[in-house]
Amino acid sequence: MATQETNPSFVLRAVKDVAFEDRAIAPLKDPYDVRVQIAQTGICGSDVHYWQRGRIGDFVLQSPIVLGHESGGVVTEVGSAVTNLKVGMKVAVEPGVPCRRCDYCRSGSYNLCPDTVFAATPPHDGTLSKYYTTQADYCYPLPYTMDLEEGAMVEPVAVAVQITKVGNVRANQTIVVFGCGPIGLLCQAVSKAYAARKVIGIDISQARLEFARSFGADGVFAPPARPEGIEEVEWSEKVAALIKEKFGLGEGADVVIEATGAQSCIQAGVHLARKGGMYVQAGMGKENVVFPITTACIRDLTIRGSIRYTTGCYPVAVDLVASGKIDVKRLITNRFAFEQAEEAFELVRQGKENVIKVVIHGYQDKQRGVEKL
Amino acid sequence: MATQETNPSFVLRAVKDVAFEDRAIAPLKDPYDVRVQIAQTGICGSDVHYWQRGRIGDFVLQSPIVLGHESGGVVTEVGSAVTNLKVGMKVAVEPGVPCRRCDYCRSGSYNLCPDTVFAATPPHDGTLSKYYTTQADYCYPLPYTMDLEEGAMVEPVAVAVQITKVGNVRANQTIVVFGCGPIGLLCQAVSKAYAARKVIGIDISQARLEFARSFGADGVFAPPARPEGIEEVEWSEKVAALIKEKFGLGEGADVVIEATGAQSCIQAGVHLARKGGMYVQAGMGKENVVFPITTACIRDLTIRGSIRYTTGCYPVAVDLVASGKIDVKRLITNRFAFEQAEEAFELVRQGKENVIKVVIHGYQDKQRGVEKL
Amino acid sequence: MATQETNPSFVLRAVKDVAFEDRAIAPLKDPYDVRVQIAQTGICGSDVHYWQRGRIGDFVLQSPIVLGHESGGVVTEVGSAVTNLKVGMKVAVEPGVPCRRCDYCRSGSYNLCPDTVFAATPPHDGTLSKYYTTQADYCYPLPYTMDLEEGAMVEPVAVAVQITKVGNVRANQTIVVFGCGPIGLLCQAVSKAYAARKVIGIDISQARLEFARSFGADGVFAPPARPEGIEEVEWSEKVAALIKEKFGLGEGADVVIEATGAQSCIQAGVHLARKGGMYVQAGMGKENVVFPITTACIRDLTIRGSIRYTTGCYPVAVDLVASGKIDVKRLITNRFAFEQAEEAFELVRQGKENVIKVVIHGYQDKQRGVEKL
Amino acid sequence: MATQETNPSFVLRAVKDVAFEDRAIAPLKDPYDVRVQIAQTGICGSDVHYWQRGRIGDFVLQSPIVLGHESGGVVTEVGSAVTNLKVGMKVAVEPGVPCRRCDYCRSGSYNLCPDTVFAATPPHDGTLSKYYTTQADYCYPLPYTMDLEEGAMVEPVAVAVQITKVGNVRANQTIVVFGCGPIGLLCQAVSKAYAARKVIGIDISQARLEFARSFGADGVFAPPARPEGIEEVEWSEKVAALIKEKFGLGEGADVVIEATGAQSCIQAGVHLARKGGMYVQAGMGKENVVFPITTACIRDLTIRGSIRYTTGCYPVAVDLVASGKIDVKRLITNRFAFEQAEEAFELVRQGKENVIKVVIHGYQDKQRGVEKL
Repeated sequence: MATQETNPSFVLRAVKDVAFEDRAIAPLKDPYDVRVQIAQTGICGSDVHYWQRGRIGDFVLQSPIVLGHESGGVVTEVGSAVTNLKVGMKVAVEPGVPCRRCDYCRSGSYNLCPDTVFAATPPHDGTLSKYYTTQADYCYPLPYTMDLEEGAMVEPVAVAVQITKVGNVRANQTIVVFGCGPIGLLCQAVSKAYAARKVIGIDISQARLEFARSFGADGVFAPPARPEGIEEVEWSEKVAALIKEKFGLGEGADVVIEATGAQSCIQAGVHLARKGGMYVQAGMGKENVVFPITTACIRDLTIRGSIRYTTGCYPVAVDLVASGKIDVKRLITNRFAFEQAEEAFELVRQGKENVIKVVIHGYQDKQRGVEKL
Repeated sequence: MATQETNPSFVLRAVKDVAFEDRAIAPLKDPYDVRVQIAQTGICGSDVHYWQRGRIGDFVLQSPIVLGHESGGVVTEVGSAVTNLKVGMKVAVEPGVPCRRCDYCRSGSYNLCPDTVFAATPPHDGTLSKYYTTQADYCYPLPYTMDLEEGAMVEPVAVAVQITKVGNVRANQTIVVFGCGPIGLLCQAVSKAYAARKVIGIDISQARLEFARSFGADGVFAPPARPEGIEEVEWSEKVAALIKEKFGLGEGADVVIEATGAQSCIQAGVHLARKGGMYVQAGMGKENVVFPITTACIRDLTIRGSIRYTTGCYPVAVDLVASGKIDVKRLITNRFAFEQAEEAFELVRQGKENVIKVVIHGYQDKQRGVEKL
Repeated sequence: MATQETNPSFVLRAVKDVAFEDRAIAPLKDPYDVRVQIAQTGICGSDVHYWQRGRIGDFVLQSPIVLGHESGGVVTEVGSAVTNLKVGMKVAVEPGVPCRRCDYCRSGSYNLCPDTVFAATPPHDGTLSKYYTTQADYCYPLPYTMDLEEGAMVEPVAVAVQITKVGNVRANQTIVVFGCGPIGLLCQAVSKAYAARKVIGIDISQARLEFARSFGADGVFAPPARPEGIEEVEWSEKVAALIKEKFGLGEGADVVIEATGAQSCIQAGVHLARKGGMYVQAGMGKENVVFPITTACIRDLTIRGSIRYTTGCYPVAVDLVASGKIDVKRLITNRFAFEQAEEAFELVRQGKENVIKVVIHGYQDKQRGVEKL
Repeated sequence: MATQETNPSFVLRAVKDVAFEDRAIAPLKDPYDVRVQIAQTGICGSDVHYWQRGRIGDFVLQSPIVLGHESGGVVTEVGSAVTNLKVGMKVAVEPGVPCRRCDYCRSGSYNLCPDTVFAATPPHDGTLSKYYTTQADYCYPLPYTMDLEEGAMVEPVAVAVQITKVGNVRANQTIVVFGCGPIGLLCQAVSKAYAARKVIGIDISQARLEFARSFGADGVFAPPARPEGIEEVEWSEKVAALIKEKFGLGEGADVVIEATGAQSCIQAGVHLARKGGMYVQAGMGKENVVFPITTACIRDLTIRGSIRYTTGCYPVAVDLVASGKIDVKRLITNRFAFEQAEEAFELVRQGKENVIKVVIHGYQDKQRGVEKL
């Protein structure tokens, strides 16, 4: 790396204010640090949320941050203590590096570490730079059969792997997934790869449902609009009954995965789970919702939240892609050059039903010619 | 048993209409059946609920039923295949006998069996009779150190044992229990017996809180009344913060047990659980409540419902009482003769703070003199 | 059913003494009983063991029993309380019906029930009769895509499903299975269906290994013969090291399944498991073996025994076959008519490497013409 | 700390060769480092083993190391990033600090980390120095009610806490512990604190058994000597039967904890566990033993190894001592000054039955007068 080299970055300066900046390249401070040249970055809803609103929960944009956290790239430098990586290796980058010292980290729940340095979560910079510096054990080498677009897609697959781990998805189960966006679709595909018997995708977009049926779902369903004069919570229970009947779920699904955050889906989801069943909240919407707590209690449900990933999610995700069990390429509907990053974000913001996953190529140094990563 | 003998019973004929009836004694139909002469029966809130409202959830009173389901008694007859019981043994009676054939029964979750014959749940008769016929494996012999009043109290202890099992209560944990009625108090005592580090009881009655502190709680708290102009969900979060601060809970409690069913307690309880923590819904109130779902999701909570008991709860409960770890006698504030059953029910209905558990003695045949059970 | 009809059966009268007998047809005694006309029966090693030795562990042949326990058939009569089956349905028959009342049954571990009526385990009759009477919830309807030969094969698949459940086999794991007989092969196939990353089959027969590679294994290995002058336990550790190296298992396999019962395989298996890993003993050989206990302790292994099946195994097994994930037909190498049963047993006894699974057709009433089941 | 101050240490130079040395004080290298002045150190069998044999398993003494790893002390210096400790705090020192980066560390099993820096395990120095430098999150503040002798004893309590965690010891269980040395006794006491119903201690020393009965055991047993002409494995099964009968264990114990490593105890222990029960190997003896594998398999046992501690063990152990549930002072039979360390080791080496736990005081600087820690 030339000493004068800078780090072209796509920066969120303030709400709705993005710009390209030439940042300094972060030095390797620790013998376990590595530098990765970013090749491909997927855009996630949370990236757009920070762009448009400047905050998610307690995380508030107070100074500029680089955006992006779903990336694959090539290792360009490794610290002296690094043994799992070498310069030139293709890797998927896990975007959060935890403190390693709190009780959460020490007990295997590093997804709950309050001191995690998480890419593109204020105040931490994201990966939409030419170079990203992180720690070696949070970079996962890709087998030679995988390219870096697939490497970038490992992040949402890992999210789905964690959700199905939290939900304890197993063979012969019936799984209902609310939402056919990238995470919902991947939860369906992961469930199928784990030998679930019947996977049902729910969405209001027919286009999304058709895609779901061709991807991981055995059946799909668009809930009918709520008739006037019926309360939402009552209608949600009715929708649950419709789904049970249509797909022969009997008492209900073994596992319900809620990946929309919409109140009506949350309500329907709780009513859909069989007694003793599992409901996983993976989507986020309103802070508080009207919730059928008595049903959850009487039916002995287990309701879990899922957030980020834990140890093993990235390796499982890499294997699911590498082995061909999940064809993540099919999710990528739009590709943009690094310089078109704002255009890419704008496309995601619009939320069109035919746009599933948008990927931004890494920065290409024109002076030196296109570096093919 | 004399062939002409009848079975004096306390019967709920219709909503708010109870009477004593001389019923026929149920014959032993199955070689595993046993007949128990009931000696002591505790009154539960659900008994009163059926009396006053005639229904709980899907269970609706459509024909008269005998009330009562928390009983201890003496075995008076055993079927030909019974090996664990003999005539004359004192037993605690588990009130629900499941079908033994459905997937719930076969996989160890018999508390979810839809075909359970559960005492005093319509259309099944309860235990407030002279004799109750049930199956041998759902009667648990009492050690000689326990009397039948304690035998009757095994039922609510078993409920608390199941709640703490669902909540996976362990040594060194901090446990917050909302509610200091019989179930809340017993959850506190069971948690303490399991070596929890700090058990906190929450209630609005100072008398109940004082009792809790002398029973199983290390600390107690009465939430202040909500000031005008503050939304309930906001105030609940504030109450959670007050509890965390007062008891030095840091990020929150390891396990929250909600034994009231009140919306504000549910909300405060979710905010009180630490990240990765456990929240158990044990109380029942409104069907739907405003619920902090995003907090549950981001904090990776496990939210469980608890209902009835599973295998092992009764034996654990018997041992906790027999070993002196839980002094259930202290919960019994009022005792009534069988003939005073309606009076006893009325006392429970009033819900006075100094009435914790009310027990009704078994029917005593005056002709033959008092049979001391 | 004609009243005079009898029940042609293949009976083990004494050690090495089998005969065909016309037995009485067992009546339906219980409203949950069903009668099944047996169509196909696989032969298991334990059947042959009783034939040749008359005992397995504490189960000793003391009076004649009908042999056979891996069967599929057609329902010919149902008791009055049966709701899950109708006459004419094709079913897989789970061979053991437990007592439903002991603590094992009540807590979901019915495989441990001491009072199980298990087909062809003394003193209980097996399924190699024209008709077999059992209980409805232990018969599993087959989807129309499955035939009765596949129905018979559900039993060994269910054994493998229980083994992988005990072993907690999951996605991306490396699994080493000692033994490429029917159970070993099916453990490999089930692991693969659950998205294991690498499944290794071990056997001393090259023919078996070749079959394994075409069935569920990603890699196979024949341990070299032990050189003279090296102790068995030392050589076993060496074999473990060879396997680790050949298949790049690093510190060892996530799960080792031992399906031979041979001492050298047990020793190698324990040395093959990674720290914190899982070892499942599924095969049975010598009662006591020289065992590397210190390795098991220091490496924090979990060592589990697996025996029979628990709730859910049969439904999972049916689904794995019905969905095409496991092609059980390929395991069937030899088929015999009912009248050739002894010939079939003799073939299994010989243990040839090209004989995997032998199936005996159900009794065909010649008088009435061939009944196609 | 005066710059010229040195670090008096008790050093194992070679097998059976110990000496006092004035070592340099290890500097704080990391902002999370802390220095602890050691006040009390218990002697463990492994310390003696290194002294007498120079190796345990793969850990071989190749250059001098300081001995000792069961210590309590006072914090004398903290790195700039330390927040949980302050100078002057009394702490229990967990002796192993793992790498925090391997999959074991990241998934909560840091006891398996191959790169752990573990006190007094070659090549790492132990705690028998005036000062010991370690990391802040592996030092646990003691409540004011605990003294530093109790602080040193937290280590063996934490070992027992991990063993009972691995064994999933719970209320109402029957627990049999082989061995009444410090670890066996503490396993008994921890089990009792967790509301086990019946805890049985096994040892060949009557003095130890008497102590056990006064400490945590409800019952104790000395196995009779094996009669001539009976094989060990056969006799072990007989001993198991004797224990079952004497203590009314029926089918066997819920959990067996083997804390001796003796082959006969291992065999008896496996035969003692009930079907579906748990056996934990905590003691270490011969590398390979004759082991009843078929019993383990047929009975569906779970056999676990336990090694060191995981997150939460130290806090639980501190609480068990602080709350008075375990009176560790009673285990301390002998106390020595720092200068008498070799004498203390010699006493432990002799293995007398009335010597349970030996503690060595921290180095006292005579020049400055006795510093009371």
